[in-house]
Amino acid sequence: MTLQDAIAAVRPLDQDGLALAKRRLDRLTKPLGSLGRLEELAARYVAITGEERPPIPRAAIVTFAADHGVTDEGVSAYPRAVTAQMVLNFLKGGAGVNVLAAHVGAEVRVVPGTRNWAREPAMTREEAVRALEIGVTLAREAVHDGIGLLGTGDMGIGNTTASAAITAVLTGQPVAVVTGRGTGVDDAGLARKVAVIEQALRTHRPDPTDPIDVLVKVGGFEIAGIAGLILGAAACRRPVMLDGFITGAAALIAAGLQSLCREYLIASHLSVERGHQAVLKKLELRPLLDLDLRLGEGTGACLGIGLVHAAIKVLTQMATFDEAGVSERTL
Amino acid sequence: MTLQDAIAAVRPLDQDGLALAKRRLDRLTKPLGSLGRLEELAARYVAITGEERPPIPRAAIVTFAADHGVTDEGVSAYPRAVTAQMVLNFLKGGAGVNVLAAHVGAEVRVVPGTRNWAREPAMTREEAVRALEIGVTLAREAVHDGIGLLGTGDMGIGNTTASAAITAVLTGQPVAVVTGRGTGVDDAGLARKVAVIEQALRTHRPDPTDPIDVLVKVGGFEIAGIAGLILGAAACRRPVMLDGFITGAAALIAAGLQSLCREYLIASHLSVERGHQAVLKKLELRPLLDLDLRLGEGTGACLGIGLVHAAIKVLTQMATFDEAGVSERTL
Repeated sequence: MTLQDAIAAVRPLDQDGLALAKRRLDRLTKPLGSLGRLEELAARYVAITGEERPPIPRAAIVTFAADHGVTDEGVSAYPRAVTAQMVLNFLKGGAGVNVLAAHVGAEVRVVPGTRNWAREPAMTREEAVRALEIGVTLAREAVHDGIGLLGTGDMGIGNTTASAAITAVLTGQPVAVVTGRGTGVDDAGLARKVAVIEQALRTHRPDPTDPIDVLVKVGGFEIAGIAGLILGAAACRRPVMLDGFITGAAALIAAGLQSLCREYLIASHLSVERGHQAVLKKLELRPLLDLDLRLGEGTGACLGIGLVHAAIKVLTQMATFDEAGVSERTL
Repeated sequence: MTLQDAIAAVRPLDQDGLALAKRRLDRLTKPLGSLGRLEELAARYVAITGEERPPIPRAAIVTFAADHGVTDEGVSAYPRAVTAQMVLNFLKGGAGVNVLAAHVGAEVRVVPGTRNWAREPAMTREEAVRALEIGVTLAREAVHDGIGLLGTGDMGIGNTTASAAITAVLTGQPVAVVTGRGTGVDDAGLARKVAVIEQALRTHRPDPTDPIDVLVKVGGFEIAGIAGLILGAAACRRPVMLDGFITGAAALIAAGLQSLCREYLIASHLSVERGHQAVLKKLELRPLLDLDLRLGEGTGACLGIGLVHAAIKVLTQMATFDEAGVSERTL
C-alpha cells in the first residue's frame, strides 16, 4: 500500500457503533458513567473497529529505533552508540518496554533504522516516503497477524531534539517552550539543544504545511516509521496507543497528512518532557496517565494498553441490571 | 489482635530498604528516574515490606458492604435494597470490581455488614471497635494466606453521605465543599444531602480528636471495617491500595488512630466525588490515576494494583547497564 493509498483509506469513526456501545455501558450494574474514562475507551474502541462486542485485542508495541547525527552537537546525556546497544537490549528482553509489554500481554516488535542527520537535512524526500511506507506496511502486517491494538515506541539517542524541532514547526510554539532535557541534560546542555534546533530551523526552513518536508529537514527515520504506522493502523481501523513525546511528534506528522488519524489515537500518558503538552493540545488528546514517565520505548503505551483491555472487559464482561436482578435508580 | 495491639504494632518504613531499592533502580537500563512514579511505587513497596527483591505480590480486594439508614432521608439516587443486591452481584462475579480484579489477577473478598444509621447515632462505641477489629483480623488473615498487597473496596447505598460527614469532621472543610452527587443525585437531592449531614453534625457533635466517636456518630460498618483493614495491613507491613472517596474517609479514621498508617497507603485514583480531594490532601497522598471514576467497590484500587505489579516487575526484571552492556551517560 502506498502512502497515498493509506491516507485515502482512512474513514471517520463508526457513530452507530459508538451509540450501541454507550447504550450497553448504561445497562451495566453501576451508576451511569461511573467508570468514567474506561467507558469512553471502550466506546471508542467499538467506534474505531466496528466490533460491537469486541474480544480482548491482542496488542503489539512497535518500537522504531534510529540514529540521529545531531548527537554530534552535544544535545544528549548519552553517546549515540546507546541506540544500537538498546536495540540489542530490546531483542534480549531486558528493557523497560519488554517488561511492561509482558505485563500487559503485548508483544514487542523492534524496527531499527540506520541513517543520521546533523547539519544537512535528515533525509531525502524519497527516504521519508519510504520510511512512512515501511510504517504503513508494518501496521498492515500486524493487523493481518490478528493484532487489534497497536502501541507505538521509539528509541534513538538525540530524538527528543528532532521531536522538539518537529513540534515547534507544527504547533507554532517557540523552540524554548517545547524543548526539554531528554535523557537528562544539564542547563548548559539544554541551552545548547535549543540553540541547535533554532539554528537548524533557520537554515532548513521546514514547511509547516508539508509534513514530509518537516521529516526531511529535521525528522528521524523512527519518527517517520511511527507516523506511517499510525496512518496504516487508521487505514485498517485499528486504534493506536501513543507513547510519549517522540511518538506524539510522529502523530503530528501523521495528522498533518490525514487529519482523520486523530480519531484513531489514544494518548497513554503525559510525559515529563515538556514539549509533550503542546503536542497533545494540538492533537486535542487527553492523556490517560500522568506518572512522570519520560523513558519512551513504548513503556507508557504498554500501561495504556492495560487500560484499554480493562475497558473492553467492563463493556463485555460486567452484568447488566436485568441479568443481576439489581434495582434501578428511583431519584 | 485487639485494635490497640494493631495500633501499637505499626512501625515507620524501612529506610535502608528504600535506599537499596533506589540504588538498584538507578542501575537499570533507562535514564535516571525516567520511569517516574513506577520507580517511587517499587521503592515504597520495598520500604513497606522489607523485601529487597520482592516477588509479584498476590493481591486481594476486600470489599466491605453495609446498609445506611440515612437513605431514608432521600440522599441517594438508588433504593437501599441495591446494597444487598450488589453483594449478590459481587458473589456471582458480575460487578465492576469482579471484572477489574480479574484483569489484574486479584481476588475479591466480600464482607457484608447489616446495621443502619438514620437519626440516631450510626452504632455504639463497642460496635465500632468490633467492626474495626473485624477489619484488623481480615487483614491478618489475608497476609497469612500469602496476600502481599491489599486493596480496599466499599458498597453501601448512602455511604457517600457518611463519608462526606466524616471528611467534614476530620478535615475541617465545610460540608458543602466535601459533599458530592454519589450515585448521581440531582441538584435538589444534593441540597438535601448537605442539609441532612449539617443537621446530623449539629445534633451528634462528633469529636474530631476521637475517630471512633466519629464512626459512632456518622460512620458506617463498612467504613469501620476498611479502617480496621488498613490498621491491620500496616501492622503486618503490607501496603494498602485505597480506592476512592469512601475508602479515603476510612483512611482518615485509620490515620487518626495511628498516623504512621499513612506511609502504608497508596492512593489509586482521584475520584469525581468532590470530597475526595480534601481526603487526599489531608492524607498527603498523590493519586496515581485520574480517570473520572466514581463507582467504588474497589474498582480504582484494582487499576492501582496493576501499576504496583508493573513497578515491581521494573525493579526485579529489567536489565542493568552492566548486564546489558549499554554505555552510561557522558554528559
